[in-house]
Amino acid sequence: MKNKAITSRDKDFAQWYTDVVKAAKLADYTSVKGCIAIEPNGYAIWEKIQSIMDKKFKELGHVNVQMPLLIPEHLFNQEKELIEGFAPELIWVTEAGEKKMEERLAIRSTSETLFCDYYKKHITSYKDLPKLYNQWCNVFRYEKETRPFLRSREFLWQEGHTVHATAEEAEAETKQMMEVYKWFNHEILAIPSITGKKTEKEKFAGAEYTITNEDLMYNGVCLQDGTSHYFGQKFSKAYDVKFTNKDNKDEYAYYTTWGKTTRAIAAIIMVHADDYGLVLPPRIAPKQVVIIPIGDTDEVNNLVNKFNQELNSNDITTYIDNTDKSPGFKFAEAEVNGIPIRIEVGKRDLENNQITIARRDTREKITISKDINIVDYIKELLETIQNDMYKKATERRDALTFEAHNMEDMKKILNTQPGFIHAMWCGDSECEVKIKEIKGCKSRCIVEDGERIDDKCVCCGKEAKHHVIWGIQY
Amino acid sequence: MKNKAITSRDKDFAQWYTDVVKAAKLADYTSVKGCIAIEPNGYAIWEKIQSIMDKKFKELGHVNVQMPLLIPEHLFNQEKELIEGFAPELIWVTEAGEKKMEERLAIRSTSETLFCDYYKKHITSYKDLPKLYNQWCNVFRYEKETRPFLRSREFLWQEGHTVHATAEEAEAETKQMMEVYKWFNHEILAIPSITGKKTEKEKFAGAEYTITNEDLMYNGVCLQDGTSHYFGQKFSKAYDVKFTNKDNKDEYAYYTTWGKTTRAIAAIIMVHADDYGLVLPPRIAPKQVVIIPIGDTDEVNNLVNKFNQELNSNDITTYIDNTDKSPGFKFAEAEVNGIPIRIEVGKRDLENNQITIARRDTREKITISKDINIVDYIKELLETIQNDMYKKATERRDALTFEAHNMEDMKKILNTQPGFIHAMWCGDSECEVKIKEIKGCKSRCIVEDGERIDDKCVCCGKEAKHHVIWGIQY
Repeated sequence: MKNKAITSRDKDFAQWYTDVVKAAKLADYTSVKGCIAIEPNGYAIWEKIQSIMDKKFKELGHVNVQMPLLIPEHLFNQEKELIEGFAPELIWVTEAGEKKMEERLAIRSTSETLFCDYYKKHITSYKDLPKLYNQWCNVFRYEKETRPFLRSREFLWQEGHTVHATAEEAEAETKQMMEVYKWFNHEILAIPSITGKKTEKEKFAGAEYTITNEDLMYNGVCLQDGTSHYFGQKFSKAYDVKFTNKDNKDEYAYYTTWGKTTRAIAAIIMVHADDYGLVLPPRIAPKQVVIIPIGDTDEVNNLVNKFNQELNSNDITTYIDNTDKSPGFKFAEAEVNGIPIRIEVGKRDLENNQITIARRDTREKITISKDINIVDYIKELLETIQNDMYKKATERRDALTFEAHNMEDMKKILNTQPGFIHAMWCGDSECEVKIKEIKGCKSRCIVEDGERIDDKCVCCGKEAKHHVIWGIQY
Repeated sequence: MKNKAITSRDKDFAQWYTDVVKAAKLADYTSVKGCIAIEPNGYAIWEKIQSIMDKKFKELGHVNVQMPLLIPEHLFNQEKELIEGFAPELIWVTEAGEKKMEERLAIRSTSETLFCDYYKKHITSYKDLPKLYNQWCNVFRYEKETRPFLRSREFLWQEGHTVHATAEEAEAETKQMMEVYKWFNHEILAIPSITGKKTEKEKFAGAEYTITNEDLMYNGVCLQDGTSHYFGQKFSKAYDVKFTNKDNKDEYAYYTTWGKTTRAIAAIIMVHADDYGLVLPPRIAPKQVVIIPIGDTDEVNNLVNKFNQELNSNDITTYIDNTDKSPGFKFAEAEVNGIPIRIEVGKRDLENNQITIARRDTREKITISKDINIVDYIKELLETIQNDMYKKATERRDALTFEAHNMEDMKKILNTQPGFIHAMWCGDSECEVKIKEIKGCKSRCIVEDGERIDDKCVCCGKEAKHHVIWGIQY
C-alpha cells in the first residue's frame, strides 16, 4: 500500500522529495528562515557518513581541527576572487551586546581565509609540511531558495585544508581526495557518481582548478556532491604562507581544499527513495534490520531476542520494535524510514516453523525456515541489497545518459528528459553561456581521457577540445 | 629537565597554563578576537570526550539532532529571564549580502529557544514523550576576557534538551545526567569533582534549579564543568509546549537541559599537567603509548613493530615515533604532549635483553625484560596510572578543602590559599553578596544531605539552612 503522506515521485518530484523528508522524519523547517532542524533519523545518517569518511581521512594521515566560526572582514578581503565569489552569500555580525562592532565579522561560508591565516603562523620550513587538516563544522550561505539538505542557508560539512611543499604533492592530494569521495559514493551510498574537472567558469572562486563528484538524480537533474580544489600558490601568496624549502629558499606553499556536505543525504533520497518513503543502502543505514514480533508468546519473544542478540553481536545494527503499535503500522514505519531489512516473527508463521523477511529495496517478502543461520543469511542479503541498489541506480543513470552533437540535439534532450548529456566543447565560455540559455543547462565536468565523440563543438561547430558532461543542476 | 617553554606552575599559574596549551599544541590564538583555533592535539582530546560521552548518552536512550545556529530576536524575547540573562553576551547578525535584515538574528549562546520552538510543533500527546534529544555544536558568548578552553567567545559543547510528561521523570533526568557528568569526570578524566544544587542566585537564567559539577584546579580555583537544569513548566509555558496527558487533558511539558563543554580540556590541564607539560589520564588520552626506537638495527625495529602491533590490536592506542629527530627530542615531545606511557627500545638496552618504560605522571623510568608480556604489562600500568592520577588529584583537592565558621575564617582562607570552602549558609542572597566581596568568592553548590558543620550562617550568624561549598571561580 502506497504511503498516503507521500506524493507520487513520477507525478511531482519536488513535492515527493519534501514528502519523503517529512514522512521519514529526516528534517523539518524551523522559525529560522532557510534553516532546518535535522531530526534524529536524518542526523543518524549524517553521523554514519561522518564516521565512515572520518576513518578514511585518518587512514590517509589527516587530523581534525576546529577554526573559528567568524571571519573578520579584512581577512576575507585579502583574496579578491574569494570575496567576489562569496560576497552575495555572506551574512555579517555587526553588533555585540547592544553595541556596534568596530569591524564586521562574516559567518564562515568556507574557511580558506582562517586556515591560511593559521598556516602563515605555523609553517616555517619544509619540515613542517605537509599539514593535512580537516574540520567538521557548520557553514552559512545566504541562499534565496532553499530545500532541506539540498540547499540550506546553514549546512554541515567537512572541509579539508592541506598545505604541501611541492605542486606535485598537492595535486596528488587533490586527486586522492576526489577518489575518496568517489569511493564513498559508489561503495557506501550506492550512487554511481562521475568525476572530472570543472570548466574555468564553474570552478571554485580563486582555485587553479576544481575536480567534482556529480550524481544524477532519479529525475535526471544533476547534483554536485563533493569537490576537491587545487589552489597552487594563489592563496598562499594572498595570505603569505611561506616556507623555507630544501634549498634553503623561501617558497610559497601549495594548497588544496576539499569538502562534502549534508547534501549527500539529499542525494541518497533522490537516487534511492520511492513512493513508499526512504530506501537506505545497507552500508549507510544507521539501523540495518528491524525485528517485529507478531503475537505476544514466549516462542515469538524468545526468537526475536535471539535474532536481535545474534545479529547485533555480529556487527549488524538491529533493533526490535516492541512498541504497542499494530504490526501493520510497524511495517509501514520501517518502510518509510528506509530500514533495509525487516524480519517478521509471527505466531502463525512459527506454527509452520517459518519466519518472514522483507527487503525494503524490492519490497519482496521471503518466507524461510525459523532455523536458518540468521547471521549468515542477513549478512548475505545486506550485501545483495547494497549491490542491487547500486546496479539499479547505475541502470537509471545510464538510461538518462545522452549524447548531443549539435544544439538541436541539446534542446531536444533537455526539453524531453534531462540527464547526463555528453557533448564535445571548444573550450570557449561563450558557448557555455549559450548552452545555459536552454533550461539553465551547465557543464558538469570535463571527462578525463574522454573518448572524442565528435570533432566539432556542440555549440559553435568549431574544433572541439574537450569531452564534457552537461546537465541541469540543483 | 624542565621544559624551558613552560613557566613554573608554582611561580605563575596563569602563564604556566598558557604555556602548556601552547607547548602541547592544543590551541592557538587567531585573528578573530577571543576565538581560538583548536589544534590537532587539542581536538583529538575533544573527539575522545565526545565519543565516550556520546556512547553513554545513547545507552541512556538519547538521540542526536542539529538545530539552527541563528535565533530570530522575537524567539529569544519570548522567555524574559533567558533574554535578560544572556543579552549582554549575545552577538547579532544584521546584514546579509549587502542588505540590512528585517530582523536581527542572534548566534546561539544556548538553544532552549529553538528546541522549545521545535517541540511545540512536534509534541501533541503523552505518547510522543519523552523526547531525549542532544546536539553537539558550537556556541558563542561575547566574553570580555578570554583564555583558551577556559573562556572563549566561541566554544564547542553538547547540549541535551529533553521533554517529559511528568515532573518526576524530568527531575530524574536532570539528576541522571549530572550523574553521567560526575561519572565522566571521576572515571575518565580522573578529576574528583563535587556535585550539588546551585543557589537561586547562581542558577541558569530561567531554570527552576541547576545542578552543577565543580572541579578544583591545582591552584585552588574552582571550575564549573557541566551543569544540568530542571525547568519544570517554565519554558514550556513561554514557548507553548503542550501535550494531551493520559487523562486527555492539556498539560505543559516538563523540560530539562544539560551541557558540558570544551572547558573540560582546561580542567584536565589545570588538574593534572605539570612543569613538563600536559599529563593525560590514560582513559582520555587519544594516544596512550609511544614507542621510541633508539638505534636503527633490525633487532630494535622488529621489537618496536611487534610491540606496536600487539598493543594496537589489544585496544591500546599506540604509535611509533620514527621521525628523524633525536631520541632526546622525542622524549621531550612525548612528555610535553602528555602521552601516558613511553616505551624506549634501545640497541644498548637490548644487549642486556632489556627495554625501558617511562610513566608520564610520575616521570619514573622502569627497566624490564624485553620478553615481558607487553600487552598485560601496559594494560596494568595504564590502569595504575589512571588510579594514581585520580588519587593524586583527590589528595590535592582534599588538601585545599577548608571549613569556615565565620567571616574571619573566610577571609583568612581566601587570602592565604583558596580552595573548596565548606560553610553553613542561612539561604539569604544578601549573605552571598557579602561573601562575594572577599576576592569574588561565590557559592559553588549546596551539598546534598550535607552534614551540618555549624548551626549558624557563616556570614550573618542567623540560623543556617544549607551546607554550601564556596570558592573563587574561573
